[in-house]
Amino acid sequence: MTLTTDLGVADEYVGVMKGVILSINPACTIIDISHEIPHHDILEAHYILERTYSFFPPRTIHIALVDPGVGGPRKSILIQTGRYYFTGPDNGVFSFVPYHETVQKIISLTNDEYFLRTVSNTFHGRDIFASCAAHLTLGLEPERLGPGIDQIVLLEEAEPEVRENQITGKIVHVDRFGNLISNIRQEHLARLSEKGSYEIVAGKKRIRRVETSYSAVPKGETLAIFGSSGTLEIAANQDNAAGKLELQRGSALIAVSRSAK
Amino acid sequence: MTLTTDLGVADEYVGVMKGVILSINPACTIIDISHEIPHHDILEAHYILERTYSFFPPRTIHIALVDPGVGGPRKSILIQTGRYYFTGPDNGVFSFVPYHETVQKIISLTNDEYFLRTVSNTFHGRDIFASCAAHLTLGLEPERLGPGIDQIVLLEEAEPEVRENQITGKIVHVDRFGNLISNIRQEHLARLSEKGSYEIVAGKKRIRRVETSYSAVPKGETLAIFGSSGTLEIAANQDNAAGKLELQRGSALIAVSRSAK
Amino acid sequence: MTLTTDLGVADEYVGVMKGVILSINPACTIIDISHEIPHHDILEAHYILERTYSFFPPRTIHIALVDPGVGGPRKSILIQTGRYYFTGPDNGVFSFVPYHETVQKIISLTNDEYFLRTVSNTFHGRDIFASCAAHLTLGLEPERLGPGIDQIVLLEEAEPEVRENQITGKIVHVDRFGNLISNIRQEHLARLSEKGSYEIVAGKKRIRRVETSYSAVPKGETLAIFGSSGTLEIAANQDNAAGKLELQRGSALIAVSRSAK
Repeated sequence: MTLTTDLGVADEYVGVMKGVILSINPACTIIDISHEIPHHDILEAHYILERTYSFFPPRTIHIALVDPGVGGPRKSILIQTGRYYFTGPDNGVFSFVPYHETVQKIISLTNDEYFLRTVSNTFHGRDIFASCAAHLTLGLEPERLGPGIDQIVLLEEAEPEVRENQITGKIVHVDRFGNLISNIRQEHLARLSEKGSYEIVAGKKRIRRVETSYSAVPKGETLAIFGSSGTLEIAANQDNAAGKLELQRGSALIAVSRSAK
Repeated sequence: MTLTTDLGVADEYVGVMKGVILSINPACTIIDISHEIPHHDILEAHYILERTYSFFPPRTIHIALVDPGVGGPRKSILIQTGRYYFTGPDNGVFSFVPYHETVQKIISLTNDEYFLRTVSNTFHGRDIFASCAAHLTLGLEPERLGPGIDQIVLLEEAEPEVRENQITGKIVHVDRFGNLISNIRQEHLARLSEKGSYEIVAGKKRIRRVETSYSAVPKGETLAIFGSSGTLEIAANQDNAAGKLELQRGSALIAVSRSAK
Repeated sequence: MTLTTDLGVADEYVGVMKGVILSINPACTIIDISHEIPHHDILEAHYILERTYSFFPPRTIHIALVDPGVGGPRKSILIQTGRYYFTGPDNGVFSFVPYHETVQKIISLTNDEYFLRTVSNTFHGRDIFASCAAHLTLGLEPERLGPGIDQIVLLEEAEPEVRENQITGKIVHVDRFGNLISNIRQEHLARLSEKGSYEIVAGKKRIRRVETSYSAVPKGETLAIFGSSGTLEIAANQDNAAGKLELQRGSALIAVSRSAK
């Protein structure tokens, strides 16, 4: 099971979720992906989990908990795909799932038999998601957790805008090294490169090729590279690209055909 | 086994404790509750563990390590209750235990047969608590670790002051979301509400009811709620209550009968 | 298996490494030593792992990942000693190993059969070290991972300078409590004390004895002590020695014979 949350690690909340899980299945392996998602930042959790989930063994249950609407009308859901389970609030945090995986079932978690005895209105990560996920690891059928539903909430802004001669993506994450990670994937650039050369516009910098290692450019120089997550990154060899280019999360990253100009 | 410490995660200390535990019992499951307790803040560790310990499976061993008196005269103790074990320095960090659990034994850890070979005067978390706790997980009888004692050190300031028409508690923790968590429990407010209406005084704010979800008030408004830990919290719907009310850890939180005025 | 990296815990990188390991061996126990090594600081990772590795069970695999040269010519290595395995980039991060352990084999990791299917040029922690280490835990012979080599890269500056009447060490780490941890070991001071009394020069402070507990001096006073890691530390009883003495990582710490002056 994995956890991706905005709970931080100073408070006791993550420990409590793990206590709930181990009380139901003491043999469960629980891995932290990140608890440092900015407070209530659904989109950041979405991208981090999108880049991470597929490195885990089949049948892993991924819990995502960024939940500004807790206690309100948003649904609690479980998504079962051919390879994984995803559970958390139905607020768009799982928008990437239908793009990459074959969705088999979506369950609205309503059967309080599998919740903690008293469900708070403030911490469904503990009372619903941790508890239901732990029961799943013991072999519970997903259908026992509630009725099937047809649709999850999707965040429209998650994907780049694709036009004939231009891909307009954005920086979706700046990592601790200052690497600027975008939502532009190899398949997007492949469309442009079929038509000839292109350039990548990152703030004031124009980049005409994608490198295959940081050290392909001199120390301190910026470059474009398909990063470890498979999406286009702007990095600097042993330096901080975010600082050098004055770009940040949310900044545009555009790839444009040069023949088109 | 759980760990609650002021050791942080940048230094190697927590990893070393886990190495010691796994060297004795390689199959032990170790869960971090928090390592971000402020340096030497016994009371903060006390409250965090109080809110957390009961979510773990029976027979879990909880290690608390905030230890300004290491190497001095303070005892090293193990508390066995009907459901759990607690081990750490006898400096008040376990003051909550007798309030909630049936204490069966208190052991003074003195048998160095179960300590690391060389015991430092600076890190009993590693040399005594991790080592003794790991031996317990292998089935060691607590009595083997040292003689029984009658009493643990209790922190008087941990509990709210209860008078007939007024409960004077305090903010014991501000979480990462700015929620103000107090030491006032449901049983305390129940005493007041038997006598009629009451109000809660949080800084300049007076609150006349306890809500059941954050979204019961408009976005940005403050509210009182029994939080996920069962104690009274002052929160703000999708906002930071600590910032709005200019309250902090240690600030008073008072519930007073309105009939009494 | 243990992890010591400069990856931080906000990004998904550590979680991804664990996903790779568990995909190969779902039963592997993975312990975080630290992910807060300053960016590209090979020497800090070296000292943290030196102080930590020996507390783990025999046959533990220690992964160290501080890798400014990733994608360049530096080798990827595995060191097998009588008791442990170490794997990571061959950039000096394992310089301490030959000082403390009997090196049995050094392998250059070149057999991509045991790498992730696609190896990036940016994240060998995931693609090579996590993957090879996980295969080792399943019983793979180290020789299958690549050819043996004779030598690892050694960092000359890691050890103190030893002269007849003076040991010139340095502060190699300041922990979260402000304790100043040096690279001077008990054996170094033993050489001096054979010749009579000595003093320790820590900035403007001169210290003439090594204490055995923090509380041997009044609250707030500085002292010298062999810390929990076995090297000489300058600490302050319930206070911050780094702040009091205005010393930091890299500052000299000198022990000098008094008879020699």
